[in-house]
Amino acid sequence: MHFAFDDATNEIVARVQTFMDEHVYPAEASAHEQMRAAIAEDRWDPPAVLAELRAKAKEQGLWNFFLPGGGPAGLTNLQYAPIAEITGRSIQLAPAAFNCAAPDTGNMEVLHMFGTDEQKQQWLEPLLAGDIRSAFAMTEPQVASSDATNIETRIERDGDHYVLNGRKWWITGAMNPNCKVFIVMGKTDPEASRHRQQSMILVERGTPGFEILRGMQVFGYEDRDHGGHAELRFTNVRVPVSNLVGGEGEGFAIAQARLGPGRIHHCMRSIGIAERAIEMMCRRATERVAFGRPIADQGVVRDWIAESRVRLEQLRLLVLKTAWLMDTVGNRGAHTEIQAIKIATPQTVEWILDKAIQTHGAGGISQDFPLAEWWAGMRTLRFADGPDEVHKNSLAKAEIAKHRRD
Amino acid sequence: MHFAFDDATNEIVARVQTFMDEHVYPAEASAHEQMRAAIAEDRWDPPAVLAELRAKAKEQGLWNFFLPGGGPAGLTNLQYAPIAEITGRSIQLAPAAFNCAAPDTGNMEVLHMFGTDEQKQQWLEPLLAGDIRSAFAMTEPQVASSDATNIETRIERDGDHYVLNGRKWWITGAMNPNCKVFIVMGKTDPEASRHRQQSMILVERGTPGFEILRGMQVFGYEDRDHGGHAELRFTNVRVPVSNLVGGEGEGFAIAQARLGPGRIHHCMRSIGIAERAIEMMCRRATERVAFGRPIADQGVVRDWIAESRVRLEQLRLLVLKTAWLMDTVGNRGAHTEIQAIKIATPQTVEWILDKAIQTHGAGGISQDFPLAEWWAGMRTLRFADGPDEVHKNSLAKAEIAKHRRD
Amino acid sequence: MHFAFDDATNEIVARVQTFMDEHVYPAEASAHEQMRAAIAEDRWDPPAVLAELRAKAKEQGLWNFFLPGGGPAGLTNLQYAPIAEITGRSIQLAPAAFNCAAPDTGNMEVLHMFGTDEQKQQWLEPLLAGDIRSAFAMTEPQVASSDATNIETRIERDGDHYVLNGRKWWITGAMNPNCKVFIVMGKTDPEASRHRQQSMILVERGTPGFEILRGMQVFGYEDRDHGGHAELRFTNVRVPVSNLVGGEGEGFAIAQARLGPGRIHHCMRSIGIAERAIEMMCRRATERVAFGRPIADQGVVRDWIAESRVRLEQLRLLVLKTAWLMDTVGNRGAHTEIQAIKIATPQTVEWILDKAIQTHGAGGISQDFPLAEWWAGMRTLRFADGPDEVHKNSLAKAEIAKHRRD
Amino acid sequence: MHFAFDDATNEIVARVQTFMDEHVYPAEASAHEQMRAAIAEDRWDPPAVLAELRAKAKEQGLWNFFLPGGGPAGLTNLQYAPIAEITGRSIQLAPAAFNCAAPDTGNMEVLHMFGTDEQKQQWLEPLLAGDIRSAFAMTEPQVASSDATNIETRIERDGDHYVLNGRKWWITGAMNPNCKVFIVMGKTDPEASRHRQQSMILVERGTPGFEILRGMQVFGYEDRDHGGHAELRFTNVRVPVSNLVGGEGEGFAIAQARLGPGRIHHCMRSIGIAERAIEMMCRRATERVAFGRPIADQGVVRDWIAESRVRLEQLRLLVLKTAWLMDTVGNRGAHTEIQAIKIATPQTVEWILDKAIQTHGAGGISQDFPLAEWWAGMRTLRFADGPDEVHKNSLAKAEIAKHRRD
Repeated sequence: MHFAFDDATNEIVARVQTFMDEHVYPAEASAHEQMRAAIAEDRWDPPAVLAELRAKAKEQGLWNFFLPGGGPAGLTNLQYAPIAEITGRSIQLAPAAFNCAAPDTGNMEVLHMFGTDEQKQQWLEPLLAGDIRSAFAMTEPQVASSDATNIETRIERDGDHYVLNGRKWWITGAMNPNCKVFIVMGKTDPEASRHRQQSMILVERGTPGFEILRGMQVFGYEDRDHGGHAELRFTNVRVPVSNLVGGEGEGFAIAQARLGPGRIHHCMRSIGIAERAIEMMCRRATERVAFGRPIADQGVVRDWIAESRVRLEQLRLLVLKTAWLMDTVGNRGAHTEIQAIKIATPQTVEWILDKAIQTHGAGGISQDFPLAEWWAGMRTLRFADGPDEVHKNSLAKAEIAKHRRD
Repeated sequence: MHFAFDDATNEIVARVQTFMDEHVYPAEASAHEQMRAAIAEDRWDPPAVLAELRAKAKEQGLWNFFLPGGGPAGLTNLQYAPIAEITGRSIQLAPAAFNCAAPDTGNMEVLHMFGTDEQKQQWLEPLLAGDIRSAFAMTEPQVASSDATNIETRIERDGDHYVLNGRKWWITGAMNPNCKVFIVMGKTDPEASRHRQQSMILVERGTPGFEILRGMQVFGYEDRDHGGHAELRFTNVRVPVSNLVGGEGEGFAIAQARLGPGRIHHCMRSIGIAERAIEMMCRRATERVAFGRPIADQGVVRDWIAESRVRLEQLRLLVLKTAWLMDTVGNRGAHTEIQAIKIATPQTVEWILDKAIQTHGAGGISQDFPLAEWWAGMRTLRFADGPDEVHKNSLAKAEIAKHRRD
Repeated sequence: MHFAFDDATNEIVARVQTFMDEHVYPAEASAHEQMRAAIAEDRWDPPAVLAELRAKAKEQGLWNFFLPGGGPAGLTNLQYAPIAEITGRSIQLAPAAFNCAAPDTGNMEVLHMFGTDEQKQQWLEPLLAGDIRSAFAMTEPQVASSDATNIETRIERDGDHYVLNGRKWWITGAMNPNCKVFIVMGKTDPEASRHRQQSMILVERGTPGFEILRGMQVFGYEDRDHGGHAELRFTNVRVPVSNLVGGEGEGFAIAQARLGPGRIHHCMRSIGIAERAIEMMCRRATERVAFGRPIADQGVVRDWIAESRVRLEQLRLLVLKTAWLMDTVGNRGAHTEIQAIKIATPQTVEWILDKAIQTHGAGGISQDFPLAEWWAGMRTLRFADGPDEVHKNSLAKAEIAKHRRD
Repeated sequence: MHFAFDDATNEIVARVQTFMDEHVYPAEASAHEQMRAAIAEDRWDPPAVLAELRAKAKEQGLWNFFLPGGGPAGLTNLQYAPIAEITGRSIQLAPAAFNCAAPDTGNMEVLHMFGTDEQKQQWLEPLLAGDIRSAFAMTEPQVASSDATNIETRIERDGDHYVLNGRKWWITGAMNPNCKVFIVMGKTDPEASRHRQQSMILVERGTPGFEILRGMQVFGYEDRDHGGHAELRFTNVRVPVSNLVGGEGEGFAIAQARLGPGRIHHCMRSIGIAERAIEMMCRRATERVAFGRPIADQGVVRDWIAESRVRLEQLRLLVLKTAWLMDTVGNRGAHTEIQAIKIATPQTVEWILDKAIQTHGAGGISQDFPLAEWWAGMRTLRFADGPDEVHKNSLAKAEIAKHRRD
């Protein structure tokens, strides 16, 4: 057991950090400005400055880190983890700058692992190149998304085509006009066994019958820089049978395979957010004066800062261990830990963000600081991929089984 | 000691409830719709349906309850409290429907208690009549608002006028074009003793040099139905000396007098919000099925509901007792309790709203339910009138002094 | 609604407070000393000083307040509540000093309401006179005590006698040699409907077959001043049929009737404990110096004190309202509130005691201060009469039912 | 970075586990029995069964693991950590069984690093051999122990002797008659700079003027199996100058050196306690039936179990990382992490124990399960070596300094 990153990781982390310092942080102000304009004009594409960042990052080979073998060094989950953390520090820009933003990353992995050559050529190549963006359409209104068997969207074979009917919501990125392809989960065989009913299929933007109904709000935020979170309707949407990803009935298995790395990425980025929040909290505390002295002198503020550090150190180690387990024993072997980080991350990071907000006073909840927006994003993790309560219940059952006396 | 409301209160509460059932709740959907349109058209006036509600309520004499002697029965704080709670259940509409919305209520009280006859005629009359709205401009960017001596806005005498220079933010209602008058706090004499430096003065909308710079966001919400929360700039704004409210140097005392009833109102409305959230949580729990049974059968959901009830009952009693103290021993005698409800209310109600949101899944954070917006509003109470930490510190000092051995 | 006690209450409260100041607090040190000696000699009777206090209190008519109509003024629950709070401040001595200690109070109520004349003469009279003590034997090892139908102790009719067989534990007061009578709950008819299986019967100390097996410990404490908490065994214990309290099958109903007032008493005494802990915490904070200044200057300590006050004020009001409900609509009408105070009280008071302990440093957990012992006593309330989780579950079910749409 | 123990660690851990299964767990019942007898006889020596365990462990070479180079394999902190965890599972027996119990371990380290050859021969040899026990006397009543400059005990040179005067408390192990030597901290030069005033000196049990006044209680526990926690008085106690450990003025530095490993050991043993509590909680939950089904089916109990696992995994990793840092960059380099685990461990483990207790019902707080006693021990960690608040304050200051803008 040891707790230092290997040299290859340190070297690439250093390069990413340099890129952040030279390009990403300085671009934040204009990105913010551009997004304000986008709202006024009701546009849903990312800020123009992002395209410049992407060009620079790609040029420097700081690109597609997430993909095993696809990044500069063929990174493991554990090697990628600290990079994800750093990109989390500028969550509106950095993940996309390095072409490492959800949901594209998971979608590229799916196409990489399960796509046909033709699918790879048509969609994976431009995604890897950063020419287009993509979305992943699984969650549905009206049904508890924690239970995949609830899915109501139908994918029915009709000759050389599949016909889709159904409704999805919270489809991140879909409002971005450059989001060209959707991986859609639906039921091809409602009579099959629980986990063989679902399939995944590619739907191109603009296919007749495919409608984007509206953007969902997250505590008032529309997340336009991420392409929003759309509600979609599929009405007799016809796609060629060659659009199926994997075979019929493999939808559930593909979704599971997609899940593990996504969790790690989300959690590590969240830790990056928390680190930046601690930094902001500390700076604010030294610079803000109340009743004649900086609020950094107040015991309660110090208590928040200490607790933040103590909790975050523990969380990071658990996420890193989970990455290591996924690298060494695979997603299945890391099942409990993947659940654990899904439960632990929003608890810890929400708490830290709340205290950082409080330290900033009324400004903390406004558009003048990113803290409230980060908080809202973090709050969503408590039901993303099913509410935490479902995961806790499952984790507890496994724990209880472990100790059962014969 | 007894815990039932008197007959007069019960009678008026019943009438308010009837009005809610017949008019307010049924209007919520169209108000929501109208506010969506307002956003699209970048308008800041309240929903059209509100004007209809106000007309009906006024006609029925359900109007201006808050003003001691001004309501139908000349209500005490304790009698008004349950009405405030009920209006909190439809916070976007009901307080304004009965002309009992902040900040108008506090402003009317200030004019009632401290205004000249001329000021009353010009501003209090139309406010009481519901013809115009008003704002209260105290909080400033850059300085800790918990310490009134920090105020930087200047009010300087120049012949028959006062000249205002300064900046304010979080001025609720200011974006509403019908908000015709602002009570502005500034310093007339920075050399006076700590609590005699400030004065309050009336500024009419449209006075030259008065600018509304932008609306502040609360998380991602703009609160257009409340007229937003504006940042204002005063540049050599000249107003006649007759606009001064009370005398020079009385600003701090007026602000204090305004504070107590405002707290009670806020807290009781917050309890109404929490009651409605519990109701929504219970209904959702019985109607939402996961893994084959309603989530109301889940122990964790029941735990949330029980805790919500237990915490809310305690909080309501403390707020009611505070109202009673204000009625019997005055604001000063109720000082500790006024601080206590300021601290306790957001803690309890935030927690309840968080659980109600979680029970609603992803819908809970979206525009499809009001829960997330209520939560965001509640979060602001933790720094409104100074961060809770300042109030806790002060309350603790008083408690410690009480027990000091001679 | 109003929040002041009536004059009769205030007058009697003043007398009790005077007695506390003149007699009870000054006796605490010797009581502590005597209990240390009792441990060394393995004795289980209360400290000698208690007998003196009881004599004085009885002489002054400060006696048996708890019994409706039995106290000096025929007190209601609401009138008794503040007296219970004051006695909680010296929990090892004061309740017993005024002959208001559990479980005697509940037992006297049972005998008063359900006892025969003969039973009253034999047991209620000496209990009211303070000549003997009593115990209430319901809880059993091996079964979840929250479910009365689980009771395994048998009470079988055999001619003119009942024969008891079974085991009980946590029988408070039983180790005190002056505890002369036990009210024992057992099943007379296991075939009857759920709540008609149980009966209550009187068993005199020393009846053949009745054994006291051991004292149970509460976090290392034996609570000898309360007569400990015993494990008992009944082996063919024969008592005359005239010892039955009420009729066969009425045990459950009697237990329920006994429960409500007991809860109020427990909760109010707990509030008294918390008040004294806050007082101790404040004094310690002003008198203890660390790093050059009293710890009362530390923000975190102030936060504890403020939170303690804010939480306790809310709790007290809920307990008082519950007392008022019991007086006005009866135990059944106050059912939800009785559950609520059972849930809320240990949460709040435990928290306050924990902070008071922490303020006292290592001394806080030792025999040099009563705080740790009080904490341990409070911790037991989270399963007394069934674990809080059972009560929360039940309260939530009622709340959910209230909001169910037709 | 990787998260598996090395082979040497795994091998020794396996041997320790085997020893636990074969010898320690089976001895727990008789140890418990023997301690009950010890209390009745007012004896303070460890249970007889411990001597047998020690003999067996020593024979198998499972002995003195803690001492770098002294154990079977010359263990690092990181290698020792999992062994400490396992011994924590039977905290009353296992640490001492392997001669790895506090305070002997820290004392042996002190003598190893700072003792003279003579001191080593006289005291270190028999301690390593397990023939005697020892104590460490630093904490004093009346002064905040978090500030070493507060120490009031005097060590004054008088010819060939030092003369000690002062009072200590919470001196663990001191009541055990086989505790033959005390390392005592006192001031040799109150005029020296803050951290050069203190020295450490050896005092043999029975030296004239050395008195053991009483055992301190932890909640109601006396911890006789650990030799209790004594209050001591030194009245003109004369010891030869050769008893000084290190030089005059080195007391503070020695105390600091002793601290780091002690923290790791305490924390890892606490994790072992928590693991066993989770195991007990899970078993109880499957075996206890309430309202017709095992309580393991209750959502709230599952929530406790899941939270316990999630929190404990995070804590363990932080403690292990701290051990690794101490091995690689030393105590000073691991300063923040050593503070962090001191803060995090009792929070997490207390919480888990509380839930395990609640799952056990009233039995959980009694002598029938070790949970309450473990909880009490854990509660002491929140002020051991100074209250957590002092450590949080210090950690926050360092964090704030890290982010200060130049």
